[in-house]
Amino acid sequence: MMFLNDLVTVDKAVDTAIYLQIANAIIQAIRRGRLRSGSKLPGSRELATALGVHRKTTVAAYEELLAQGWLEMIPRKGTFVVQDLPEIKPKKLKQTETSVAYPEKTIFSIDEKRFVQFPALGFPDTKKLIINDGFPDMRLIPNELFLRELRSMGKQPAFKKYNMYGRAEGTDYLRDTLSSFLRETRGLPISAANVMITRGAQMGIYMAASLLLKPGDQVIVGEPSYFAATLTFQQTGASINRVPVDEGGLAIDAVERLCLTKKIRLLYVIPHHHHPTTVTLTPERRIRLLELAATYKFAIIEDDYDYDFHYTSNPILPMASLDHHGSVIYIGTLSKTLVPAIRIGFIVAPENFIKAVANLRMGIDRQGDSMMEVAIAELYRNGTIGRHIRKVVNLYRERRDHFCSLLTENLGQRVTFRIPDGGMSVWTRFNDSDLRNVSAKAFQKGLIMSDGQRYNTGTINYNSARLGFASLNLAEQERAIDIIARCL
Amino acid sequence: MMFLNDLVTVDKAVDTAIYLQIANAIIQAIRRGRLRSGSKLPGSRELATALGVHRKTTVAAYEELLAQGWLEMIPRKGTFVVQDLPEIKPKKLKQTETSVAYPEKTIFSIDEKRFVQFPALGFPDTKKLIINDGFPDMRLIPNELFLRELRSMGKQPAFKKYNMYGRAEGTDYLRDTLSSFLRETRGLPISAANVMITRGAQMGIYMAASLLLKPGDQVIVGEPSYFAATLTFQQTGASINRVPVDEGGLAIDAVERLCLTKKIRLLYVIPHHHHPTTVTLTPERRIRLLELAATYKFAIIEDDYDYDFHYTSNPILPMASLDHHGSVIYIGTLSKTLVPAIRIGFIVAPENFIKAVANLRMGIDRQGDSMMEVAIAELYRNGTIGRHIRKVVNLYRERRDHFCSLLTENLGQRVTFRIPDGGMSVWTRFNDSDLRNVSAKAFQKGLIMSDGQRYNTGTINYNSARLGFASLNLAEQERAIDIIARCL
Repeated sequence: MMFLNDLVTVDKAVDTAIYLQIANAIIQAIRRGRLRSGSKLPGSRELATALGVHRKTTVAAYEELLAQGWLEMIPRKGTFVVQDLPEIKPKKLKQTETSVAYPEKTIFSIDEKRFVQFPALGFPDTKKLIINDGFPDMRLIPNELFLRELRSMGKQPAFKKYNMYGRAEGTDYLRDTLSSFLRETRGLPISAANVMITRGAQMGIYMAASLLLKPGDQVIVGEPSYFAATLTFQQTGASINRVPVDEGGLAIDAVERLCLTKKIRLLYVIPHHHHPTTVTLTPERRIRLLELAATYKFAIIEDDYDYDFHYTSNPILPMASLDHHGSVIYIGTLSKTLVPAIRIGFIVAPENFIKAVANLRMGIDRQGDSMMEVAIAELYRNGTIGRHIRKVVNLYRERRDHFCSLLTENLGQRVTFRIPDGGMSVWTRFNDSDLRNVSAKAFQKGLIMSDGQRYNTGTINYNSARLGFASLNLAEQERAIDIIARCL
Repeated sequence: MMFLNDLVTVDKAVDTAIYLQIANAIIQAIRRGRLRSGSKLPGSRELATALGVHRKTTVAAYEELLAQGWLEMIPRKGTFVVQDLPEIKPKKLKQTETSVAYPEKTIFSIDEKRFVQFPALGFPDTKKLIINDGFPDMRLIPNELFLRELRSMGKQPAFKKYNMYGRAEGTDYLRDTLSSFLRETRGLPISAANVMITRGAQMGIYMAASLLLKPGDQVIVGEPSYFAATLTFQQTGASINRVPVDEGGLAIDAVERLCLTKKIRLLYVIPHHHHPTTVTLTPERRIRLLELAATYKFAIIEDDYDYDFHYTSNPILPMASLDHHGSVIYIGTLSKTLVPAIRIGFIVAPENFIKAVANLRMGIDRQGDSMMEVAIAELYRNGTIGRHIRKVVNLYRERRDHFCSLLTENLGQRVTFRIPDGGMSVWTRFNDSDLRNVSAKAFQKGLIMSDGQRYNTGTINYNSARLGFASLNLAEQERAIDIIARCL
């Protein structure tokens, strides 16, 4: 019987039960039009003999197919493919492409070849030295403390409820904890109702943009500014307006001029350490910006993703702590403080905004990981996070100073930079070498570093890169700068 | 000095360092226009005396304010608020509302009062009995095994790399594991490149809808259908077309008629156990639907969220296993299998679609929780998940049978239902009592159950509810049905 050998092959080596392999093969044969509607099948005994399996197995396969409605049994006649199946024209398999076209929303295009621009993303296993864009040192993260907390929590019956669906805003336990913490350390006059837990700063930006922007809306960002935020705004169809960034941060005069000519909907700012240039927005500009927002009724997204990492004074209080008009949507993250792969961040905003964001979130992924959120809250409450921050801030300050000395001593007039007050990178301009060449040469010598292209917006070639100092110990920094010196 | 007592209050009971409290109070006073640009501040000694704190504390406060740029020191003159601050008109605080208007995207409106419709969502701590919408029994979830896996993984250096940023598609380790598993158990002819890890089925639906739909596009769903998916499609601005659902699932003739009159972009179907009615799409209709999709070039979202829970035969192979045209975007989740609060699901689709979804994901929340994903992969590989599924399926089958017997014996002609082949709920129509009254009365007697309104689309009042049997043991089922009987 040609059918048997041709259509059904049994592979005893794979995990799938043999009767299921037989059933699936028969379904595929029907689907491909090779076993037609109404065809008679061999008896289970005959099939068993042909396939070299036990008769019980073929009986089970047929029972499965009867239960699933593919076969029917006609008494004293035998087993048949059901009668009413449509005619199939057998077609070629094309597994790599959809027949359905869709707009390629490739604004966030992940170009594997260009991962070198974001060294931290693409080479987790590399043996090469990496100067990344400003990420924490993975060797210092308190991952074990986090997992221990999670495990011990998992044993307590009181935490069992966090396994069930919870609120889109995040668990009340973490919202309470964070709101106290932010009230005490960042001067934010808030309660838990003003806090929404997100999956990192990016989700905060995404949700705020989704809620605030529609095609044609006008957004202000810096020139230069954090590219991922700009892309997120562009994806909504909004128009981007760029204002200069100088040593005092965003140029507020330019913001005001824009307000006079256009209806501005949203302004995005990183006042603490501007991305990519790391400058801090001056107090005078902070106040003027808040007044402009109140006058012209635009929203401000204050992205404070690296609040904890400030070296010259205590971290500077957020603009949100000075906002009396509900203009500021304040976005933070714990990814830099804890583990980048543990995606927990937050939005602080007026209560009505938080409710609207929560409604939006229901449709995106419903909620965060409650157990993780509660474990993070515990780490805040028992002081683990505070101790960890103090420890790494001291270490990163030392690394910043060492790195900047190395830049001065080894690269001298070839680069221009200022010592950043905070953050994890030094915004470094290469004065007389094309950074793309430097990056390519460095790669040959075993150092992965940015080629700077990501910071360019098309109007200005900065020929600069954020050189991340925090993830390299002093010896690694010396090796890295030595390689760069040999590439200029 | 009025300034001191009026503007700065020190609270030694709170956690914030006192020098920071003083600094923050002075910043707030400047921000509110009560301390003007250029005002002279008292000396640190004078301030210390007035506030009853050590002079070192006030010196630290002034240093902080100097560092942050709020104050300036003029030699031999004293300490002043910086000169160039803009004039502030003091305003009233309004912390509950933004001054910025935004479209309330309240399609997913979370109405606290109506949580009773989704009993599982709102009452994690209730002592009342709950018949939910069809959720697993939280008492049976293998949360401890998961946490133990996570903890032991966290100790192994090889897993350290999963703390750093990873791929938007998910960790290769889980994608490999899942693709083998789905190939072997669900007949899907795929590799890891066809798998994207998501945060539950909802995120899969959200991302597929975002990619495929634009305002005005035509979508087909069942009447009735899973409301959250419908809302997600509506949020993109697409138009919803409803086709009847009968005992054999979606009426394919009605789908074909729609294809003749409109350009259909997307069809959403839950072929395994339709939501909310739990019926299974017949083999004949599956094949016809795939042929229609190929002919009229629309995409199919196959939502197979409760694949594992089938009681009359093995789970029925997904339509995706029969798709030769790349029309099917197959969506699954582990939330029902493991822990609802651990948001891990997947999309299986042609490789180009997966790449486009990954680009989209970069802008939403960047990536999933890599450590969680790897722990889940381990639980697949060591057989924990398979064993857990076999165990609970047997138990849920017993619960389904018991629950259906109770419905027949205690409610008799007052309700109509069919025994579901799978899933975790019985679609039950109340023949002669308004379900809203039944639900309200039951609440008074200590039972939380759906009032059925969520399943109504506006055209038909089903007066029916999904009565979840899986989360109640046999004794709880008896109590619950007894209460319902007394409410009819």
